[in-house]
Amino acid sequence: MELLPDSAPRQPDTLDSLFDDIRQKIIPGVTHWQSPNYFAYYPSNSSTAGFLGEMLSAAFNIVGFSWITSPAATELEVIVLDWFAKMLELPSQFLSTALGGGVIQGTASEAVLVALLAARDRALKKHGKQSLEKLVVYASDQTHSALQKACQIAGIFSENVRVVIADCNKKYAVTPEAVSEALSIDLSSGLIPFFICATVGTTSSSAVDPLPELGQIAKSYDMWFHIDAAYAGSACICPEYRHHLNGVEEADSFNMNAHKWFLTNFDCSLLWVKDRSFLIQSFSTNPEFLKNKASQANSVVDFKDWQIPLGRRFRSLKLWMVLRLYGVDNLQSYIRKHIHLAERFEQLLISDSRFEVVTPRTFSLVCFRLLPPTSDQDNGRKLNYDLMDGVNSSGKIFISHTVLSGKFILRFAVGAPLTEERHVDAAWKLLQEEATMVLGNV
Amino acid sequence: MELLPDSAPRQPDTLDSLFDDIRQKIIPGVTHWQSPNYFAYYPSNSSTAGFLGEMLSAAFNIVGFSWITSPAATELEVIVLDWFAKMLELPSQFLSTALGGGVIQGTASEAVLVALLAARDRALKKHGKQSLEKLVVYASDQTHSALQKACQIAGIFSENVRVVIADCNKKYAVTPEAVSEALSIDLSSGLIPFFICATVGTTSSSAVDPLPELGQIAKSYDMWFHIDAAYAGSACICPEYRHHLNGVEEADSFNMNAHKWFLTNFDCSLLWVKDRSFLIQSFSTNPEFLKNKASQANSVVDFKDWQIPLGRRFRSLKLWMVLRLYGVDNLQSYIRKHIHLAERFEQLLISDSRFEVVTPRTFSLVCFRLLPPTSDQDNGRKLNYDLMDGVNSSGKIFISHTVLSGKFILRFAVGAPLTEERHVDAAWKLLQEEATMVLGNV
Repeated sequence: MELLPDSAPRQPDTLDSLFDDIRQKIIPGVTHWQSPNYFAYYPSNSSTAGFLGEMLSAAFNIVGFSWITSPAATELEVIVLDWFAKMLELPSQFLSTALGGGVIQGTASEAVLVALLAARDRALKKHGKQSLEKLVVYASDQTHSALQKACQIAGIFSENVRVVIADCNKKYAVTPEAVSEALSIDLSSGLIPFFICATVGTTSSSAVDPLPELGQIAKSYDMWFHIDAAYAGSACICPEYRHHLNGVEEADSFNMNAHKWFLTNFDCSLLWVKDRSFLIQSFSTNPEFLKNKASQANSVVDFKDWQIPLGRRFRSLKLWMVLRLYGVDNLQSYIRKHIHLAERFEQLLISDSRFEVVTPRTFSLVCFRLLPPTSDQDNGRKLNYDLMDGVNSSGKIFISHTVLSGKFILRFAVGAPLTEERHVDAAWKLLQEEATMVLGNV
Repeated sequence: MELLPDSAPRQPDTLDSLFDDIRQKIIPGVTHWQSPNYFAYYPSNSSTAGFLGEMLSAAFNIVGFSWITSPAATELEVIVLDWFAKMLELPSQFLSTALGGGVIQGTASEAVLVALLAARDRALKKHGKQSLEKLVVYASDQTHSALQKACQIAGIFSENVRVVIADCNKKYAVTPEAVSEALSIDLSSGLIPFFICATVGTTSSSAVDPLPELGQIAKSYDMWFHIDAAYAGSACICPEYRHHLNGVEEADSFNMNAHKWFLTNFDCSLLWVKDRSFLIQSFSTNPEFLKNKASQANSVVDFKDWQIPLGRRFRSLKLWMVLRLYGVDNLQSYIRKHIHLAERFEQLLISDSRFEVVTPRTFSLVCFRLLPPTSDQDNGRKLNYDLMDGVNSSGKIFISHTVLSGKFILRFAVGAPLTEERHVDAAWKLLQEEATMVLGNV
């Protein structure tokens, strides 16, 4: 971007000139995550309530590391996370009134890292700190790459990260049998299984891992059981989707991102733990300059001890405002509307024999591809890449891709706040037209 | 806080009723970091420009993990961090045009963690991954607790974190001799020194560690040299304070927080590295669902590979707006004004023989205490605690404390955007009155 000067100005600029630059130089380079025609990756919802929450939080501009540095920030967070836990029907142990509690992290990457570090430290305490090289993590090959990064940060040996192949016949969920098998081999090699990460709504295809069975395995071997429901957690506020969380009672930690599909501006990732003492043991520091009466009396929550950084923003405000200003009934309707739109898109795909739905839809993500001619050399990779590149280059919609069982797959993730039937229909029309184009080029 | 119901509402609430709750239940529990009478910890500046930046960022609400997910967010960040590096006269290796570059992290805790992990992985690559238990970190006892937490996260053995006692005769800077001595002992024990963290503006008293000498030591033993200038880095945009950064040319990483004393809303912590490849080696992941033409061609920066989380906000906007709307000249005046106010407070202290300035002031933080009577049992701890508790309980000002050489010390940190002479004078009057009270109670 050669559009800006190469050093900061000595003298102030006018707001008008700045806004001109924003219009002419920034906005053309923004990827419009809020567009109703955005269907890539996962949604990043904003809303009037979320925006107002961000404004208020920016106005207070507090740094709520300890309770004393803004009691309302901590207390509202405790309350709103309890509200959310009840909405999701999490077991009561996850509430602040029991031994657990919820905390707002930046992202699901930080949530899984925090859980992994607490689990690592618990295991090292039990087995001795020299045993780091023996600790083994289990997850499916559909688990988000954040887990791999967390393992690397936590110093888990890369050869001890078990990537268990998910079952394509189970919509790409992992099977308990495959995990048990890997685990048996490790146990017989003298390794120490200590962490299972399950996903409710995997990134590539929204698969749901079998929580009750994985939870039982974790319990049998005194392992930490983490559930990543970053995207699909939102759907579980609807009674008809809540069953996807059955088994959460076995979890040590559970995460969902209010900033994805819940109208709450980025970032706002919710992490609940069943026993907060493990977080505090791993993350607490108590330097003299932060000591204060309330903390010393152990009468308050200091969220600095539940997370990686010290400083933290007043993020509970926006989540509280979303819940207050929309209400649970409307939020459920919001989720159902997107799932209905995804169903519609799935039906449109089925109506055109040139396409296939690659794995059955569970929430609001549809995985599909254009069927390649039988003679196709690379099983439709180039064909579908060109289809994606074509529609994305038009600037009219934005979709993304993944690979499942070696197939290059297109992902159509419904969930932007303004997306309606007409946007889905227009996207479908565009995909059909582009399909005709690329098939003609084969 | 029993002020709110115990579950989320089914039906939406009105904005009026929400704002009533904010006025009646939230604001009374907010610690007013933006008050001109806030002198505790360190400042957390907001400003009109910073606030507008937050609003715009919340409006776009993009998730800029990869260049493709919002090119303008990445490119503006690269440009603005280069601007800032030039303002601080960082060596050209720290610029994006060389092998280095800058990146916005959330906090200084994350900045030092990112640096430590990159350094750890570099050392493990050289010495073998079994050598983790031999890696040694060096810092002074005045270093922020974030380093201790980072070491714990990175799996550095707690007995290998060398906390070198700072020299009270050098304003609580660490001496190179003390570091070298600790290092010699470790080398002769077969340990591997790999990381030195120096501070420009320590948390307790704004000490400045001797960068050139510590940098030389780091270089001699192939160690990573990190500089934490979270607070005082802002002052170094003024030519008369820039000498405190002499020696930064030896650093591998350098950090300052624009969200502290630079009118940029929290969070906005700036980290520069001399060789970005070490960050990328430690933090890059490349799952199929994130692959894209631009990233695969290696033609762009993907900041996901320079940080812990995947997702990231459009934080460069607010920093750019602060620089554009105020200009470097005004920003320098802003810094100088606060330092002048701190000088004034220091002079007021000197004029009252009941008080002592504990260690000479360097920037806008004054460390002082009320002198205890010679008969005092605890060398003024209770006396000064009561003084702090008294003025803080009045609700008129907010100050915090630390301990230096066993003395309980009060900290008066000037730096809120609206603080003027009259606020400092009123704070001083309040402290004098409270001093008379607590001395009368001895």
